[in-house]
Amino acid sequence: MRKGIYLENTPLAEALKLWEDKIASEGIGPLEGEPVPVRDSLGRITSGAVFARLSSPFYHSSAMDGYAVRFAGTFGASESTPKIMKLGQEAVYVDTGDPLPDGFNAVIMIEEVNVWKGPDGQGHIEIIKPAAPWQHVRVIGEDIVSTELIVPENHRMRPVDIGAVISGGHMEINVRRRPKVVIIPTGSEIVEPGTDLKKGDIIEYNSRILSALVAEWGGVPLRFNPVPDDIDKIKRAVIEGCEKGDLVIVNAGSSAGSEDFTAKVVSEIGEVLLHGINIKPGKPVILGWANGRPLLGIPGYPVSTYITFNLFAKGLVYKWQGLETPEPEFMKAWLSRQVASSLGQEEFLRVKLGRVGEKLIATPVSRGAGVIMSLVRADGIVRIPATSEGFGAGAEVDVEMLRGKKEIENTVVCIGSHDNALDILANILKKSHPVYSLSSAHVGSMGGLIALKKGEAHMAGTHLLDEETGEYNVSYIRRILGERRIVLMNLVYRQQGLMVPKGNPRNIQGFADLTRDDVVFINRQSGAGTRLLTDKYLKELGISPQDVRGYEREEYTHMGVASAVLTGIADTGMGILASAEALGLDFIPLAKERYDLAIPSDFIKMPSMSALLDIVRKSKEFRTSVEALGGYDVSDMGKIMYES
Amino acid sequence: MRKGIYLENTPLAEALKLWEDKIASEGIGPLEGEPVPVRDSLGRITSGAVFARLSSPFYHSSAMDGYAVRFAGTFGASESTPKIMKLGQEAVYVDTGDPLPDGFNAVIMIEEVNVWKGPDGQGHIEIIKPAAPWQHVRVIGEDIVSTELIVPENHRMRPVDIGAVISGGHMEINVRRRPKVVIIPTGSEIVEPGTDLKKGDIIEYNSRILSALVAEWGGVPLRFNPVPDDIDKIKRAVIEGCEKGDLVIVNAGSSAGSEDFTAKVVSEIGEVLLHGINIKPGKPVILGWANGRPLLGIPGYPVSTYITFNLFAKGLVYKWQGLETPEPEFMKAWLSRQVASSLGQEEFLRVKLGRVGEKLIATPVSRGAGVIMSLVRADGIVRIPATSEGFGAGAEVDVEMLRGKKEIENTVVCIGSHDNALDILANILKKSHPVYSLSSAHVGSMGGLIALKKGEAHMAGTHLLDEETGEYNVSYIRRILGERRIVLMNLVYRQQGLMVPKGNPRNIQGFADLTRDDVVFINRQSGAGTRLLTDKYLKELGISPQDVRGYEREEYTHMGVASAVLTGIADTGMGILASAEALGLDFIPLAKERYDLAIPSDFIKMPSMSALLDIVRKSKEFRTSVEALGGYDVSDMGKIMYES
Repeated sequence: MRKGIYLENTPLAEALKLWEDKIASEGIGPLEGEPVPVRDSLGRITSGAVFARLSSPFYHSSAMDGYAVRFAGTFGASESTPKIMKLGQEAVYVDTGDPLPDGFNAVIMIEEVNVWKGPDGQGHIEIIKPAAPWQHVRVIGEDIVSTELIVPENHRMRPVDIGAVISGGHMEINVRRRPKVVIIPTGSEIVEPGTDLKKGDIIEYNSRILSALVAEWGGVPLRFNPVPDDIDKIKRAVIEGCEKGDLVIVNAGSSAGSEDFTAKVVSEIGEVLLHGINIKPGKPVILGWANGRPLLGIPGYPVSTYITFNLFAKGLVYKWQGLETPEPEFMKAWLSRQVASSLGQEEFLRVKLGRVGEKLIATPVSRGAGVIMSLVRADGIVRIPATSEGFGAGAEVDVEMLRGKKEIENTVVCIGSHDNALDILANILKKSHPVYSLSSAHVGSMGGLIALKKGEAHMAGTHLLDEETGEYNVSYIRRILGERRIVLMNLVYRQQGLMVPKGNPRNIQGFADLTRDDVVFINRQSGAGTRLLTDKYLKELGISPQDVRGYEREEYTHMGVASAVLTGIADTGMGILASAEALGLDFIPLAKERYDLAIPSDFIKMPSMSALLDIVRKSKEFRTSVEALGGYDVSDMGKIMYES
Repeated sequence: MRKGIYLENTPLAEALKLWEDKIASEGIGPLEGEPVPVRDSLGRITSGAVFARLSSPFYHSSAMDGYAVRFAGTFGASESTPKIMKLGQEAVYVDTGDPLPDGFNAVIMIEEVNVWKGPDGQGHIEIIKPAAPWQHVRVIGEDIVSTELIVPENHRMRPVDIGAVISGGHMEINVRRRPKVVIIPTGSEIVEPGTDLKKGDIIEYNSRILSALVAEWGGVPLRFNPVPDDIDKIKRAVIEGCEKGDLVIVNAGSSAGSEDFTAKVVSEIGEVLLHGINIKPGKPVILGWANGRPLLGIPGYPVSTYITFNLFAKGLVYKWQGLETPEPEFMKAWLSRQVASSLGQEEFLRVKLGRVGEKLIATPVSRGAGVIMSLVRADGIVRIPATSEGFGAGAEVDVEMLRGKKEIENTVVCIGSHDNALDILANILKKSHPVYSLSSAHVGSMGGLIALKKGEAHMAGTHLLDEETGEYNVSYIRRILGERRIVLMNLVYRQQGLMVPKGNPRNIQGFADLTRDDVVFINRQSGAGTRLLTDKYLKELGISPQDVRGYEREEYTHMGVASAVLTGIADTGMGILASAEALGLDFIPLAKERYDLAIPSDFIKMPSMSALLDIVRKSKEFRTSVEALGGYDVSDMGKIMYES
C-alpha cells in the first residue's frame, strides 16, 4: 500500500475549539473603520458611535401653515373680544417648516384666523383665542439635539439611520472595512465555465458559491484565477493571497493524495494547525496560519466545500465586522425513513421538509458529497453525531433550516411515482404563486401511497395497474389506505416502453430480447409502477428475472433509467417516452398507462393545494407544456377518477 | 379663511384597495427578464425556469483515488485467490475526479490494492475481492441530468443555486429586471447635505431613506436632484421621471397648501386617484397615474415619508419582481402607558419594546411626524384604528416588528432618570457585546421606580434625595418597591446646577434670580430627581412657584433643558454639568448628587445585565469616557450602595 496517506480524524467540536482559540490568541477582532458617504452606508456596520453635530431642526420652525406671533401679544383674545394683529409686525405668515422670525414664539394655524385689510391698506389678522407659548412650533432640537447619540458602534445601518445621521450633520461616517476573503481554486482538471469541454474537465463553480457566501455575510470575495496542481504555483498564489486578503481559502487539494499540495504549501510558509476532521462530507480540512493570516484548505466536492466553509470561515467574517455570527434557526422534524450513518463520523444529512398535518416531516435527499443539487433541493440539515449509527424511521431530529419556516409551510409535498410533468407543475406553481412550492420525492407508486398512509405527504403520484380488473390505482388505494377519504385526480396518460440508445445499436424489439447475453437491462426499484409493468411483461413471456442481465440494478426515476441507457451503463430500460425524448433516446412503445394524483380529502382545501390543483384543472400553459414533452395524452387532465 | 384647503380623509383600507385595483387593471405584473452572468446573480429573481444543458458529471469519473477496472475482470478474487491485474491494460490509476477509460466500469480504492512490478518489469496490482459494477464511480448525471429542472421561475438565487446553474452548463441566466423607482425631492427650502446652512434651510435626507428602502426591496433607486417649489420645474421632473422609472415618487408638496404643487402637476399630466388618507402621520398622500406610470406624492415630514412609502410603494416593487411582499412579523405586547389618539385617524404609533420577565412591554416614543429619531429608536409600530380613541395603560397590542425578536430579548430596558452616562454605557455595551442593547426611556427617578414596580423595566436610574435622612434613593425604593429584592449600584456622583447661556447674559447667580421679571426658567417634569432638587431650593429660599416665570413648562431630560436654554426658549434651567458642557453653556454649580442604578435581584443574572454591569464595574473605557463628559465623580462607580 502507498505511504503517506494520512489524515487526522479530529472531532468537529475539538477542531472548532482549536480554531477559535487560535483566532483569539492571534488577536483577531473587528477591522478598522473606513469613511463612506452616509448615503452609501446601507447595511454597513458602524466602527464608532455617531453623535449629532447639528440639532434638528437647527432653528425654531413652524409646524403648520399659519401665522407666527409673540404669544404674549395674544393674551386676552376671545370670541367676544377678538384681537387684531398687524401683518408683518405682530404676525408673520409662515409655511410649514419656515423659520420663526426672531422673537416670535408661537404659530396660529391658518384655519383659525381671519385675514383682512385695514382702512390703512395694511393687512391684519383677527384671532379669537390666545396662543400658548411655542404652540405649533418645532423647537430647535425637537428631533435631534446636537451631541446626542444617533447610532452606537457595531450598528448595522438601516434606511432610517441613514436619514437621521445625515440630519445630524454628517456627510460621511466610519464603517468597518469589509473583510476580504481570497478564494483560490486549484486543480489541473478544473476549467472556467464556457470552455469547450473534454472528458476529465471539471467546470469550476465552487469559487462562485464561496464568493456569494462571502458577499452574503458582508465580506468582499477576491477570487483568484484557477491554479493548476503545481506546488510552486499554489505557493505563489497563497503568498499573494496573504498579502491581499484577510483570510485565504485554497479549494481542493486539501486531502492527502498524490496531487494534494495544500497541506505542504501551508506547512512551508506557515503552520498547519490541523488536517482532517471527523465529518462527512468534508473530512479533509486544513486549518492553517501563514504570514499572520488564517488559511483554510477545503475539499473539492461541492457539498464538502460548502459545509466546511460555513463551519470555519463564517464566524471569522462576522467577527471582523464586529458582529456575532447569526444563529441558525432550528426546527424539530420527524424522519420519514431510516438513515444509517458511520460511527466515528459526524454526518451532515441534507433533508427536504414538509408540513403534513401537524407534523414536520424530514426526508433525506442524496447524500453524495459531489451532489450540489442535494443542497439546492434541501430545506435543512440534520447532524448525525459521530457516536450514532443513524436514526430509525420516525425519529425526532433537529433540523438546521436552509429555507424559511413560511416557505416550508407553503410547500405541497408529493411523494410517489416520478413523472416529468411534475417538474413542469412545480415550475408553473412557483411562477403563478411565488409563495407556494411543490416538492416531489420519487419512491415509486406504492411508496407514495404508503407515504400518504404514514402522514408524510400531501399527495402521491401513482400508476398502479390492477391486472385482474384492468383498472388503475383504485384497488391499491383501498388496500393500502383503507377507510381514508381520497380524491384521485388524473394527471396524464403516458406512453411506457423500452428506451434504447439512438439508432438502437443492439436491435432490441421487445422484452424477449432481455434474455440475450449481449443485452444489459436497467431496472426500477420495487414498488414502482414501472417495475410492476416490467414484471407483468416478463411473466406474460415466461421469462425468469434471473435470465435478465442487470435486473438487480435499480434506478429511482425515469430520468435515471434514461441516463443509464444514454451513458452505456445499460442497453435498455423501461420508462416513459418523455424521458427518452429529453435525452434523445429511441423508444419502443409498449403500453399507454394512466398516471393519477391521489390526495387525501383533508388536504384538498389547503391554499397551496388549491392553487396547484387549479393549475392541473385549468392552466393552458401547463397542458401545452406537458404535451410538448411528448408521449402524453392530457384529455382527462384534472378529471376526478375516483373519490372515497 | 383661505379657500382651496381641502384634503380627503379616505380610510386607509379603502385607499389600499383602490391602489391595488388600479395596479391590477393597468396590468402591472412581473417585469421582463434580462441576462446576467450566473456568478453575478446572487439575490436576483429568475424570470424563467433554468433547466440543465449538461449533465454533471458529463463523463463517468472516479469517486476515489484508486484503480479503474472492468468489473467483470475482477470476478473470483479473494484472500485465498488474489487476482493480479496488469497496469495500463486491466487496471488504470485514477485520481478522484478523473474520467474512467472507455469500457472501464468500477474503481478499486488505493488502500485495497497491492502494487508490484512483475518479472517482466511491468506494473501490476493485486486485489483480494471482486469489484461491484460501477463501485466508486460517479456516473454521468449523478448530480444533474441534462434537461432537469435546476431552479424554477420566480426563484431567488442563493449561493448553492449559482453553483448548480453553472454546473448545469449556463454562463448567463435570465433574471427579472430590477424595478426603477424615481425619487424627486422637492421644496425651495431643502438643501443638499454639506451646504453652508442658513435659517430656513432643511437638509434633504428623505430621498436617501427612500433610496435605501428601494435597494432593500430589490429595486433600483434613481434619485433626481432637488427641485424647487416651481410648478413647471416639478412638472418637467415628473415627466422625465415617467420616462426613466417604473414608479415616480414626488416627496413633499403633497398637501394642499399654497406651495403644494404635486396634486396639480399630477392632474395636469395624468390622473389623481386619491388625495388624502385618514392616517397619522402621513395624511397628505397623493395616489396618481401618469403616462402609464404609477405616481406617488408623499408628505415631507420624515416619519410620514417613511410610513406612506412603505404602504404604497413596497408592494409594487415586489410585484414587479414577481414576488409576494414579505409579511411583517407581529408580536403581542403590553402598553406601559396610556395613549390617547384622535378618532377618525389611524395612527402609526412607534414603540420601544422590552422583555421584562414574561411580558413584552411596549413604550411609545415621540409621536411627532418630524421626529426621524422616533423611527431610529423604535422597535415596532402599533396601529391605533381610526375607530379608537387610544389604549389604556396595560392594554394588549399587536406590534409590527422593526427589529428582530432576538434583539428585543437581548435588550436591557432602563427606565428612569436621564443621565448622559447612559448614552456612553449603551454604546460601550453594543461595542463590546454586539448582541446586547441598552434601551433607555426618560421619565424621571420616581417614574423609573414605578416602572420597576409595574414590571416594565429591568433597571431604573435614580437620584432621589431624602431630605430628612440626607440619604439617596433607599427610602424611596423601600416605599415604592416594598418587599421586592433590589440591588442598588452606584453609577456616578454628578454636579447639578443652573445652566445659562454662554457668558451668562442675564447675570444669574442662583435660585434667588428666578423671581426676576426678565428671567424665564425651564423646569423638569414632576417625579424627576432634578425637579425635587429644584423644589427643595425654592422651598429653602421661600420662593413660591407662581413667582417663577416658566415654572410650568417641563422638559423630560437634561439635554432638553440645555437645548431650551441654548435656543432662548428659557434663560436658565436646572441640570447636570455634562449637559451644559455638551451644548457649550455656562453653569452655576449648586449640588453634588448621587446617581444610582436600581436593579431587581431577579434580573441580575440575565446575560445582558451581567455584561452591562461588568462594564459599570470594570471598564476603564467607560470610566474615562464618563469623566471626559465633565462634572462626574466616578470613585464609587459599580459599588453596591444597598441590597435588600
